[in-house]
Amino acid sequence: MPRYALKIEYHGAPFAGWQRQADQPSVQGAVEAALTKLEPGPHTIAAAGRTDAGVHAFGQVAHCDMAAEWDPFRLSEALNHHLKPHPVAIVSCAAVPDDWHARFSALERRYLFRILMRRAPATHQAGLVWQVKHDLDVDAMQAGAAHLIGQHDFTTFRSSICQSDSPLKTLDRLEVTRVETTHGPEMHFDVRARSFLHNQVRSFVGTLERVGAGSWLPEQVAEALAACNRAACGPVCPPQGLYLADVGYPEDPFAQPKVA
Amino acid sequence: MPRYALKIEYHGAPFAGWQRQADQPSVQGAVEAALTKLEPGPHTIAAAGRTDAGVHAFGQVAHCDMAAEWDPFRLSEALNHHLKPHPVAIVSCAAVPDDWHARFSALERRYLFRILMRRAPATHQAGLVWQVKHDLDVDAMQAGAAHLIGQHDFTTFRSSICQSDSPLKTLDRLEVTRVETTHGPEMHFDVRARSFLHNQVRSFVGTLERVGAGSWLPEQVAEALAACNRAACGPVCPPQGLYLADVGYPEDPFAQPKVA
Repeated sequence: MPRYALKIEYHGAPFAGWQRQADQPSVQGAVEAALTKLEPGPHTIAAAGRTDAGVHAFGQVAHCDMAAEWDPFRLSEALNHHLKPHPVAIVSCAAVPDDWHARFSALERRYLFRILMRRAPATHQAGLVWQVKHDLDVDAMQAGAAHLIGQHDFTTFRSSICQSDSPLKTLDRLEVTRVETTHGPEMHFDVRARSFLHNQVRSFVGTLERVGAGSWLPEQVAEALAACNRAACGPVCPPQGLYLADVGYPEDPFAQPKVA
Repeated sequence: MPRYALKIEYHGAPFAGWQRQADQPSVQGAVEAALTKLEPGPHTIAAAGRTDAGVHAFGQVAHCDMAAEWDPFRLSEALNHHLKPHPVAIVSCAAVPDDWHARFSALERRYLFRILMRRAPATHQAGLVWQVKHDLDVDAMQAGAAHLIGQHDFTTFRSSICQSDSPLKTLDRLEVTRVETTHGPEMHFDVRARSFLHNQVRSFVGTLERVGAGSWLPEQVAEALAACNRAACGPVCPPQGLYLADVGYPEDPFAQPKVA
């Protein structure tokens, strides 16, 4: 069966998360229902990242198997037609080999987390950022983040319901940048790893926010990590600032063919 | 009576526009109702720009007169409390002299217009941009825009219901910039003038979009302007990409006091 890779953007608010559930709306369920309008199902799609309730994406990647050969552009257009009115959009589509797998072929997941720092309630950005009312110290946060880079036992930053076999992961990048926007200053976290534990990014951000606010010293992040104890983690931050930003593969399936 | 300048951000979607109306929700009405919770009314506030239905702002400026002396920060916090759940926020507040007027003291209004160029429906940016499905040529749009700079009779780019005394206005700036974002390429318009005719910015953007799409040549913008005829205008674009971005005064009332 011809296989297609889908790059997917979605607003997390109306969904109980990526993963299909019997009695709750999910992004996977929305995409599979749209596929059923194109070819009789059932369809089961696999995704690179199983995002939690309320988490957004602009670079989720999934794959689907179709009975017919589809022109990738026409497939994305047809899916977007049937996805309405859900806030889910196929932003790119490409034919891939039969053995290409959105989850198992992935080499890296990249997440963006946005904190908006201001007193006044957010209007245009409501639901798209985690808002804190105080300013944060980017240098202190970056110093705290540096302790987390590399291979570690991340038990401290792992949800108690995490199903991963091992708490050992390698964090490739955790960069904190202050960004001035038209609605005020934001703190952006660029977080990259081959794979993540459940709630790992939100545990990092919640802990580093405490560092930025001055409640924790940067070196206390190293102590929390070394404790290998969930109780040593800072507060887990809310989901609405988190975006699955991109997925890295040995070759980018969505790269535009080069014109000679 | 002590007078206060308010910098206001709002999402235009739920409102029939800035201006108070007897039977429709308005931003002015929402702010005046919040003021009534602080001091008995009626309150009447004046604003620098009377934005249309669906138009957003992150830099609207208004002023209010209060019976009591208020600490500006406390006034903004109290207003934000009573503005909930409307998507309206006081982002800055400052005491100003009795003769300072949000509308009549203003020297310049600055608008931002955002066009999102992509096929897939917008999710996070829905309602915050005007989406077109085709790419636009920024150089052609900038060439067309150049014909509009300076003092002109803007009858072509003026709504038939415009109440301005004269169609003669001076356009200080109209810059078109292509911006890459996480959800795709956008075209941003930075438009500045002492004052604008009704629908002038949306008439500019709708016309320049036709230039960017290749339906109009850049020099046809000059011909349309010279025609001084509403029928010569391109299509007026929708309101949801338009933001009142800033208002210029002889001295910025919201400037932070300098610390020696």
